[in-house]
Amino acid sequence: MLNFSYHSPTKILFGKDMEFEVGKEVANYGKKILLHYGGGSIKRIGLYDRVIDSLKKEGIEYIELPGVQPNPRLKLVRKGIEICKEEDIDLILAVGGGSVVDSAKAIGIGAKYDGDVWELFEKKAVPKDTIPVGVILTLPATGSETSNSTVVTNEETKVKVSVRSEIVRPAFAILNPETTYSLPKEQTSAGVSDIMAHIFERYFTNTRNVDLTDRLCEGTLRTLIKYAPIVLKEPNNYAARAEIMWTGTIAHNGILGLGREEDWASHKIGHEISAMYDTTHGVTLSIIFPAWMKYVYKNNVERFAQFAVRVFDVEADFNNPEVVALEGIRRLEEFFRSIGLPTTFKEAGIPTDKIDEMARRCISNSGGDSVGFFVKLYEKDVLEIYKLALE
Amino acid sequence: MLNFSYHSPTKILFGKDMEFEVGKEVANYGKKILLHYGGGSIKRIGLYDRVIDSLKKEGIEYIELPGVQPNPRLKLVRKGIEICKEEDIDLILAVGGGSVVDSAKAIGIGAKYDGDVWELFEKKAVPKDTIPVGVILTLPATGSETSNSTVVTNEETKVKVSVRSEIVRPAFAILNPETTYSLPKEQTSAGVSDIMAHIFERYFTNTRNVDLTDRLCEGTLRTLIKYAPIVLKEPNNYAARAEIMWTGTIAHNGILGLGREEDWASHKIGHEISAMYDTTHGVTLSIIFPAWMKYVYKNNVERFAQFAVRVFDVEADFNNPEVVALEGIRRLEEFFRSIGLPTTFKEAGIPTDKIDEMARRCISNSGGDSVGFFVKLYEKDVLEIYKLALE
Repeated sequence: MLNFSYHSPTKILFGKDMEFEVGKEVANYGKKILLHYGGGSIKRIGLYDRVIDSLKKEGIEYIELPGVQPNPRLKLVRKGIEICKEEDIDLILAVGGGSVVDSAKAIGIGAKYDGDVWELFEKKAVPKDTIPVGVILTLPATGSETSNSTVVTNEETKVKVSVRSEIVRPAFAILNPETTYSLPKEQTSAGVSDIMAHIFERYFTNTRNVDLTDRLCEGTLRTLIKYAPIVLKEPNNYAARAEIMWTGTIAHNGILGLGREEDWASHKIGHEISAMYDTTHGVTLSIIFPAWMKYVYKNNVERFAQFAVRVFDVEADFNNPEVVALEGIRRLEEFFRSIGLPTTFKEAGIPTDKIDEMARRCISNSGGDSVGFFVKLYEKDVLEIYKLALE
Repeated sequence: MLNFSYHSPTKILFGKDMEFEVGKEVANYGKKILLHYGGGSIKRIGLYDRVIDSLKKEGIEYIELPGVQPNPRLKLVRKGIEICKEEDIDLILAVGGGSVVDSAKAIGIGAKYDGDVWELFEKKAVPKDTIPVGVILTLPATGSETSNSTVVTNEETKVKVSVRSEIVRPAFAILNPETTYSLPKEQTSAGVSDIMAHIFERYFTNTRNVDLTDRLCEGTLRTLIKYAPIVLKEPNNYAARAEIMWTGTIAHNGILGLGREEDWASHKIGHEISAMYDTTHGVTLSIIFPAWMKYVYKNNVERFAQFAVRVFDVEADFNNPEVVALEGIRRLEEFFRSIGLPTTFKEAGIPTDKIDEMARRCISNSGGDSVGFFVKLYEKDVLEIYKLALE
C-alpha cells in the first residue's frame, strides 16, 4: 500500500424527497446563487419546481444559467464565470448529471482565477480557490458529485481535458434515486459503464498489498452487475435505483483508489472519441475498456484472473490463469452488450477513419509522451487499442 | 435503503513517516495545543520525539496532559477541560489509541460547554461546539480517529457511556502502520475484535435493500480475518499492519452503516463488563458478540446465513439456512479463539456473580427500557445474553 492523503468533505444527503433540503443547505453559504442546469428534463420531472420552492422558502436569490450539454462546453463555462463575477455569486448550484456538475466546477474555479479558465485545463496554472458548488444529481455516472475532477470540452479546438484538484470537491450533494426513474435506457446503461470504468481505473494497478481496497472495488462492481439489468427492466424500482446511485458516488469519491497507483489511460483514450464525435462518455468507455484490457492484461495476468474470479465468478483455474483472465474480459463484454452498450466502434456506428489523429491527440493532450500507469501507453499503443476496438 | 445524511470531513494522512507532517497540520488550526497521550509507549517507540520535533519546527507551543488509561476516565477529562479554558488552547492533539482519542474528544466538547462535561454524557445537553481534535493513531481498534462518538467512564459511579455527535469527528488523523509494530499481541487481537464489532453492529440489521453496503462490510470483515493471524505471527509486516489499520478506519467512519438501522446493543452490553471490571473493550466484544448472535439469529436467519456464506465461506445450503447461520457463528468463535481472544466470561477469568446488576445497569444507562434495534433487548434479554456468554 502506498502512502496517501485523503479528504472527502462533501456532505451527502441521500434518499427520497432530499431535494427539499436544498434551500437550507444553500443558506449555509450565502443568499445569491447561480442555478446551473441542462435542458428541460429537470422541469419535466418536477425537480426544477421543487428546487425553486425550497430556495424561495429560504429567501435565496438565484440567477439561472441553463443550457449545459453532454460533454460540457468551454463557452458556457466562460459565460457562467462572467455572471459569477458580475453578480457576486455565493454558490453555484448544479442540478443535473455529471456534465452540469463539471461545468459548475469549472465556473467555480474560473471565477476565482485571474486569467482565462482554459489555462487551468491546459495546466498552465493550478486552481487555488473556488466558489462553493452544491449538487442535486439526476444521473449516476460521473461521480462528479463528490470527486476531485472536472472535464470540459473546448468546442473550437475539440480538446476534452480535465482539471484534478481537491479544491473542486463539491460542498454538498443531494441524491434522490427517484429523480433517476425517467432516465432513458441508454443514459442509465452509459452511466453504469462510466461507474464501472471509475473502478477499473483504480482496480487495475501494479501496486501490491491493496487487499481491503480490492475487495471494496469488487463488491462495488458486483453490485453494478446485479442491479443494472434490474433498473433497465424496472425503471421505477427504488431499491435498485438507490444501489446504482450510491455505487456511482462510492466508485469515484476516491476511497477505492487509496494507497495505489491509478491508471486513467482508458478515460483519456475515450475522451478523444467524445471530442471528435460528441459520443456519450460512458459509451466510449464500454468500447475502450475491453480493448485496453486485451492489450495490457499480460502485464499482470494475476490481477486480471483475480478480477475474473471475484467479480464474474469465473472458476479459479490456477494452472491456466491466462484463460481465466480472458474469460473475465469476455464476460465484461457480454455484460456491456446485455445492457445495450456497444463494445466496438462498429456497434456504436462511430467512423473509424480518424483513429490515427485521435491517437496523436490523445498523447499531445496528455502533456507528456504517454498515458496510463498500469502499462505506459505511447501513441502506437493507443492506436493499437483503437484498432482492437474497431469491430 | 433508508434516507441518510453523511459528512466525514476528517483529513487522513496514511503511511510511513506521516507523523512528521503533524506540525504542518496543527499549524492550520493555531499555535497552542494540548498534547494528550497515555503512558510511556509512545516514548518507547520514539513517536513522542518525532511529534515534538515536528511541532517545534512549526513553532507550536504544547502543554502536555499524559495519563490517559484504557476506558478513559472522567477525572482526567475534567482536568483537560480546565487546562484548555485557562490556556486558550487551539487544538487538542491525541497521540495514542482510541482511549486517548475519546478522552481528547470529550475534552474538546467539554471545553466549549458551559456546564459540567458529564451532563453531555448523561444526555442532559447536546454538544454544540468543540475545540478541534487532531489524532496520531497507534492502535487500530476503536475507529475513533474519524468516528462521530466518544466513550468515557465515570470512575466514581462506574458508568461507561458515549456521546454521539457529528461535532466530535476529528479534524485530521495521521496513521502510520509502523507505529503498531510493537503492540502486544493481546492489544492487536482486541483491536481486531473491536473493528469486527463495529461492522457487526451495522451489518446485522433488518433494513432491506442495502446490498452495496453489505458487500463493503463483508469485504472488510474478510480482510480482517485474513490479516489478523498474519500480524500476530509477523508483527513487523508492514503490508499486513497497513491492511488492519485502514480496516479499522473504514469500519467506523460511518460509511458501512449508511442507509440502514444500526444496532449497538452488544457494545452497551459489553460496556457494563468494562465498567465493572475494567476489561479491555475488544475482549468484552469477543465475549458478547457470539452470545448475542446465538440469542437473536432466529429473528433474521437469512442475514446470518448470508454472513456465514459470504464472510466465512460456509457452503450455501438453502434447505438448511439455520444450520448455515449457526456454522457462521461457530466459525466466528473459532476465529476469535484462534487469535487468542476469550469468547466467554470463564475463558477471560471474569467473575460471573454480578451479571444481574450488569443487566440492570445496561438498561438504566441506556436511558430507555431496552437496548438495540435488530432485536429490542430488555433487561431479561440482556441477562440471558450474559448467561449464554458465561462458559
